[in-house]
Parts: sequence; C-alpha cells; structure tokens
Amino acid sequence: MRAPGEAAVTAILYDKDECPFCWKVRLAMHAQARPFTRRPHDHPDSVSELGRLSVTGKVPVLVDGELVIPESSVITEYLEETGGGLLPRHRAGRVKARLLAYYSDNTVGKAVREVIFAKRGRPPEQWDRGRIDAGIAAWLELLPYLSAELGEQRYFAGDYSLADCALGARFGLAMAYGVPLPETYPRLHRWYERVAQRPGFRETAPRVVTGPA
Amino acid sequence: MRAPGEAAVTAILYDKDECPFCWKVRLAMHAQARPFTRRPHDHPDSVSELGRLSVTGKVPVLVDGELVIPESSVITEYLEETGGGLLPRHRAGRVKARLLAYYSDNTVGKAVREVIFAKRGRPPEQWDRGRIDAGIAAWLELLPYLSAELGEQRYFAGDYSLADCALGARFGLAMAYGVPLPETYPRLHRWYERVAQRPGFRETAPRVVTGPA
Repeated sequence: MRAPGEAAVTAILYDKDECPFCWKVRLAMHAQARPFTRRPHDHPDSVSELGRLSVTGKVPVLVDGELVIPESSVITEYLEETGGGLLPRHRAGRVKARLLAYYSDNTVGKAVREVIFAKRGRPPEQWDRGRIDAGIAAWLELLPYLSAELGEQRYFAGDYSLADCALGARFGLAMAYGVPLPETYPRLHRWYERVAQRPGFRETAPRVVTGPA
Repeated sequence: MRAPGEAAVTAILYDKDECPFCWKVRLAMHAQARPFTRRPHDHPDSVSELGRLSVTGKVPVLVDGELVIPESSVITEYLEETGGGLLPRHRAGRVKARLLAYYSDNTVGKAVREVIFAKRGRPPEQWDRGRIDAGIAAWLELLPYLSAELGEQRYFAGDYSLADCALGARFGLAMAYGVPLPETYPRLHRWYERVAQRPGFRETAPRVVTGPA
C-alpha cells in the first residue's frame, strides 16, 4: 500500500464508545494488530468533519491516509483486503463468517438495541418494560440458531473471525444491559468467555462493559 | 473452484421477480456471464426449501454446488471473490463501489420502497398519498449526493460495477412506479439510460419494468 520510504500514517477511526458497529471495527483492527487512533464522534473537531467525511454523518468512519471509509461493513471488507486475517481462507468459511456478521449487525442488533434503548440513561422505574420484553423475546428466539452455527467449534467460523468481532460486540453490550443468556446454551457461554478473555476485548470495549476505571 | 473433469453445476438463485436485492444479484451474475437458474420464491418446491436454506427464509439465496449463500451482500462478495469483475481493482474504487451499493440497499431502497408499497396492487384511488409523498421527498433529497458521486464518469465507480447493479435495480423500480427523476439531473438521466441499455438489464428485469410481453 505504501511506497518504500514513505512515512506510515496511523489510521483514524471516528467512533462512538457504545456503538456496536464501532466496537466491531475496533475488535477487527485489534485482531489485525493494526494501529489506529480513536476520535470520538462528539469531539469538537469531529462534528464538522463527520458531515464532510460521510453523507450520513454516522460513525464509524475510518480514515486511512487518503481514503475515507464510512459504514462498518465497508470498513471490514477494506480491512480484510488490505490486512487479512478476518475471514477464513476457504470459501465456505468466508460465506459463514460474513453471513454471521450480517446476522449480528441486523437481527441480533435489533433485539439487543430494544433493551438498550429502553434502559439507557434512565433509572429502573422509568424503563420501558414492554420494549425490554420484546427485545429479550427476540433475543431468545435467535439463540438456537447461533448455538447450532457455533456447534463444537471454538469460534463461529472455526478460527477467530469477523463473525466473532461482530457477535462479541453485541453479546458484550447485551450482557452489560442485563440481557439473559440462559444456562441451556453452554456452548454460547463458553464462546463468550473465550471472546471476552481475548486481550483486545477489554481494550476496545465501551465503558458500560468494562465498568468504572 | 472445480477439479479438472468435474462436471459444472449451474448455480440456482432462489429469488423474487420484483425484489431489488434479487435483481441486483441477477445483474451481477449477468455481468459476470455466470450461468444460473432462477427458482421463484413462491414455487411449491421453494417454499419448504427456503426455510431450510436460510434462517430468515428471505430471498435471494444462491446455491452454488455445496454452498448455500443467503443475503444479497454476502452473495455479491462471494461472486466477486470467485468470479471477479464486480469491483474495480484499485482500493479507492472498491471502497466507493461497496459504499454506493450499501447506500443503494439502505437509503435509496427505503425511499423507493415507500412509493412501491403505497401503490402496489391497488387502484390509484386507494394509493396512500402521504406515504408516496414521503418516499418521493426522501428520494429527491438523495439525488444531489448520487449526482455528485457519479460526476462525469460513465458509471459510479468508473467502469460498470456492483454499485451500478444495485442502483440500476433501484432506479429501474423507481421509474416503473412513477418516481420522478427531475431534468435538473442530466448526469443521472444519462447514467440510467446507459444502464438500461445494457444487454443484461431487460433480461434480468422484473415484469413491472419490462411491461407486458
């Protein structure tokens, strides 16, 4: 990517601490051992820049040298193409990892988001109980599929992959917001423990997951 | 992908005539000159199979030999990896084509869908006028961005790419459902004419676009 002698420029990730799409990207970049600087979305310099960098103004946006890359799924494809290691080498594994990342971004994300939005920033007596119940019901419905896809493997696509970055971020937030993971899913429990013990997990996790410093 | 002497198996695309995600995939496969058999989602054989092939049961699902690939964005990454030609070779072009395909799937899709859902299957006196207006307003808001991204190029990422497959399908449906493309966007008009004149366009288009046979 770089001409010999050209200075390395550290990539900048415009992000938001609790955004699961941002956390997925942070996990992916950590897995690649790719250095990056985080720039919070609400930093005074970020607000005006984000409007210029992305038509939607949403984070994450990765700036790597001259390249401006919005949208987490576009970013992770770029990371894989330029650094590798996020997807298995064989075709079936690549399909599976991408599919589970998509499922995480959409179906899993929708369920967990209901609970987060119903609780965040409110005292328990003001939580939206109906919304919490709907989110948990949707979450419980998707666990059999995830457990079956994991099977007896250590990670969703065999080796640690983009699927685990995406699902790890969603599970991390789910656990922090009190979404239950029933004991009837021992494989998913072991997988989450495995993911949460990886060195990059706490380093990249939102404050709500790591707790007060 | 295939051992010498092994028989070629034609890929099967489970799809829906008017589904823009399916049409995007059909355009992409046509651009690659990759043979495929369409199996309509409502064919008696498809209904039970789709539940088995995809956890969401949604089309498109591509079955290529042993591999089962749901979700249009996972399919197009698979098509690119195994056949190429859907994304430019240089990094900036790959980012741009993927980003515009994402924007088409989401932002453009949301605007056009409002108009389609308000009109489809109803006589004009039963159209939901409020929903149509909302869809058209959202559509008119996104045209300046698309026109700027196209610039003076023939296609969105220079050569014909995934971005044109995605946006071509959305524009085709928008035009068929009477969504206006103002004359103040001559570049987008010329682009759409160019896309609609490509040999694969009519061959892969839904009946609502091609009109009665």
